[in-house]
Amino acid sequence: MSTAAGSKSPVDLADRNTPLIRNEWYVAALADEITREPLRRTILEQDIVFYRDTQGRAIALQNRCAHRSYPLSKGYLDGDNIVCPYHGMEFGTDGRCARIPSQKTVPEAMCVQAYPLVEQGSFVWIWTGAPDQVDRDKLVAQPWFTEPDWAHVAGYFPMKAGYLGLHENLLDLSHFPFVHGAALGKPEHAESRPKFEVVDGMVKSAVMHRDVVVGPAFASVAKMTAPIDRLSEQIVPTPAIHLGKAIYTDSSDPQKTSVRYIVHYPTPETRTSTHYFWGVARDVGIDDPAVEEETRAVAAKAFDEDRRVLEDIETVYEADIRPQFREKIIATDSGGIQLLRLFAKKARAEHADA
Amino acid sequence: MSTAAGSKSPVDLADRNTPLIRNEWYVAALADEITREPLRRTILEQDIVFYRDTQGRAIALQNRCAHRSYPLSKGYLDGDNIVCPYHGMEFGTDGRCARIPSQKTVPEAMCVQAYPLVEQGSFVWIWTGAPDQVDRDKLVAQPWFTEPDWAHVAGYFPMKAGYLGLHENLLDLSHFPFVHGAALGKPEHAESRPKFEVVDGMVKSAVMHRDVVVGPAFASVAKMTAPIDRLSEQIVPTPAIHLGKAIYTDSSDPQKTSVRYIVHYPTPETRTSTHYFWGVARDVGIDDPAVEEETRAVAAKAFDEDRRVLEDIETVYEADIRPQFREKIIATDSGGIQLLRLFAKKARAEHADA
Amino acid sequence: MSTAAGSKSPVDLADRNTPLIRNEWYVAALADEITREPLRRTILEQDIVFYRDTQGRAIALQNRCAHRSYPLSKGYLDGDNIVCPYHGMEFGTDGRCARIPSQKTVPEAMCVQAYPLVEQGSFVWIWTGAPDQVDRDKLVAQPWFTEPDWAHVAGYFPMKAGYLGLHENLLDLSHFPFVHGAALGKPEHAESRPKFEVVDGMVKSAVMHRDVVVGPAFASVAKMTAPIDRLSEQIVPTPAIHLGKAIYTDSSDPQKTSVRYIVHYPTPETRTSTHYFWGVARDVGIDDPAVEEETRAVAAKAFDEDRRVLEDIETVYEADIRPQFREKIIATDSGGIQLLRLFAKKARAEHADA
Repeated sequence: MSTAAGSKSPVDLADRNTPLIRNEWYVAALADEITREPLRRTILEQDIVFYRDTQGRAIALQNRCAHRSYPLSKGYLDGDNIVCPYHGMEFGTDGRCARIPSQKTVPEAMCVQAYPLVEQGSFVWIWTGAPDQVDRDKLVAQPWFTEPDWAHVAGYFPMKAGYLGLHENLLDLSHFPFVHGAALGKPEHAESRPKFEVVDGMVKSAVMHRDVVVGPAFASVAKMTAPIDRLSEQIVPTPAIHLGKAIYTDSSDPQKTSVRYIVHYPTPETRTSTHYFWGVARDVGIDDPAVEEETRAVAAKAFDEDRRVLEDIETVYEADIRPQFREKIIATDSGGIQLLRLFAKKARAEHADA
Repeated sequence: MSTAAGSKSPVDLADRNTPLIRNEWYVAALADEITREPLRRTILEQDIVFYRDTQGRAIALQNRCAHRSYPLSKGYLDGDNIVCPYHGMEFGTDGRCARIPSQKTVPEAMCVQAYPLVEQGSFVWIWTGAPDQVDRDKLVAQPWFTEPDWAHVAGYFPMKAGYLGLHENLLDLSHFPFVHGAALGKPEHAESRPKFEVVDGMVKSAVMHRDVVVGPAFASVAKMTAPIDRLSEQIVPTPAIHLGKAIYTDSSDPQKTSVRYIVHYPTPETRTSTHYFWGVARDVGIDDPAVEEETRAVAAKAFDEDRRVLEDIETVYEADIRPQFREKIIATDSGGIQLLRLFAKKARAEHADA
Repeated sequence: MSTAAGSKSPVDLADRNTPLIRNEWYVAALADEITREPLRRTILEQDIVFYRDTQGRAIALQNRCAHRSYPLSKGYLDGDNIVCPYHGMEFGTDGRCARIPSQKTVPEAMCVQAYPLVEQGSFVWIWTGAPDQVDRDKLVAQPWFTEPDWAHVAGYFPMKAGYLGLHENLLDLSHFPFVHGAALGKPEHAESRPKFEVVDGMVKSAVMHRDVVVGPAFASVAKMTAPIDRLSEQIVPTPAIHLGKAIYTDSSDPQKTSVRYIVHYPTPETRTSTHYFWGVARDVGIDDPAVEEETRAVAAKAFDEDRRVLEDIETVYEADIRPQFREKIIATDSGGIQLLRLFAKKARAEHADA
């Protein structure tokens, strides 16, 4: 990492040199990635092993035997415990050592960090902060991923780029016609100028597009063909979540509406790489496999296009080492700038506490 | 890079820890490498995109969109402008932003660095220094690469080794029999001891070999078969150029002469890697394709042999980290030593200015 | 290398941040690896070339021409000398330059470091410390690898893990059933608690197992089938050697004994990679090819299992960068802890001297 490259201007904005924000819930994995086979994943620069206990609960432990640093992910499960295959030590789901084969007693200190997890539909959330500061109130309720009157698709990309660029990308609609092409990049996107504001520590915006002509693909998914009014809301409640909500209303029949949530979860692996999780929930066609497939295909294609853009930018951060470079700002960056200022403040506060 | 490894002795000689010398013209590319397809190349640690405008002029811009750091080399051309494919911003050949699709006005500051280029026959030169210090008088006229009574061949190797070693190599003839074998390594080379001196800030030497017997390959290229007198001149006018000139005279007929320029352009990519450009110009057989081919083949083979030697040395700099190691000097290093002292002085002066 | 990761607790124990201990003899190569073809190998962070002179003596020189840093290992031999193929300089077996083709005299200073070597059966030892502190008394006599009433097998693994972990592994028997499986991991291993003590600056232990039932594989190698008494001794005389000795006695006939030496030589390549040499000597079946083969197969399999464990641990040191992590200690670590304390002391003393 070229530590000084890619700095933002002014200096009170978070950039790749800003410490990660730990006292939050982040998506760690898709629910079906965590099984009885241990899964190794680095989250916020921490090496972690995931597995399910015998009751099916997802477990996350520090992936480093407390004794001689062996990666527990290369071990095996014995009931609810994970066994380190070097000396046979067993760790329980709370991270405490349950057995040391070569001796009768187990010292109190022989434990690995256990990470609180919460499963929410297709997503498993992890608390990466100080264990004594776990704050369940910080979990954002997302019923559209769990309630029966909704259907959703979910996905995951590893991304070789920092998570901040993804947040900026998501708060900016003006890249749509250039990155996502004609299918998504409607004229109203390039010129849309949502007004962002910070409310209760969250960046928010809402923008209404009226009498939008929809194409056949959207029509089949949203079950609407007439010109529509679209209210697009965006909110970043935490560094782990970008929540997009679209409310579609038939322009000629205000009773005919549908709602869609397009949610992105940028989980930092390191400061320069990201686990990019996403989910799209709908309240129409919830039992229609064709809608399901179309939704998944459109989302996966678009989000992968963003991923490639952000990875290309990362190569510049690596290649161009002039520390004095500062990115310039345009009007459509307003949301991103407010967010980066907020994140810088959060990081400073956390750092001051620690 | 092992920062302290491979230091020269005494300490006032440039080595791989010496900052690169920026206020100079360097060869950036062969002319035919720059087309309407953007070309990405790192020159003196700067990420740069090259292309030709609609009139065929070579353009070089900082390869980093001023807005969100996207590599312009992954964009596309629209007339004379290059378009960043992230938000559609267009930059003109002067580096100023010409269009921001999402807004009507373009801020003054929205520009990327434009690098002055000069095309000279097969070679495109770039000014890598401070834009406000562009000095066209520093360009070295090399008419043998542009005038009609000359012919030349040109080539390019990427080299995983610093440029200083190449300069030293070129100022030293004693490696010829060992690195280039019998074809080039004539007995007179191993023992030749050209006298180097610094004149007007340039390292220079001239050495005369009389009654040299030439082999059939040379004879066919130089159109001479009799024993010849050869005056070999070397000059390093800038850190970017090693200029070799050979004047061949028929030993028995002083009127019968030919001249050849063998020019090397070691352009630093980083402190430990180099773009190695070269050209060989002749005033005989200028329309003879067989001479052309033979000249190219001999040069490319020899220069590639040097490249491999220098890359092997680079592996030692990486593997052997003892900071106290100092290279020892022999008589034939005289030219290189004077050059390294000069470069160290230039670098210090530039650093003091900055 | 994450410099602070993987620290031991308490702080007076050697870890991967501790400087290597240089004033010792280390195994540099198996004897048959050193031939008339130059061999390049990094030992204790030093790039070294090995070859045999015309009389068959093993030679080790700094792999860096004193003149322009070319790797001599890419050169060729001329009689007893190694020739640098860049300028033809020749270096003798004492490291002094014997010839500079381009000049008549050779400066005194034109020499490369020559490393003292001692050949001992299958193993070639190198002194990596200060040349003026060579101490032949520090060489540990190991007659079982040279005397005619013994036979031995020897091997070598490159290992991407630090050498300290291997020492800890070897002093700890409790990993046997987990890493080496049922064949080697006898019940008495998991619970064996050898008492370690430091005697004359060496970590030592001895443990007796009585009435051990031996399997057919061991029986065929040791030529014993009855229940046996086994005295296992371990000693680490220097950071370069882990010496294991097993004395087998027929439980019902004290006159019937055999001895085996199982010796490990962990030679640091860098602080995070190791040349792992080993040898197993026996005083029974010394002319029996089946015993030879069985011994080699069992040893190579077991030591490779250890190598894989240690390389897995190295990935954790790289991935998990929390500096505050401290490994916890259990009873069976007693030997390793004493050793790491000893090594830390040695490193500090050497550092203070230098």
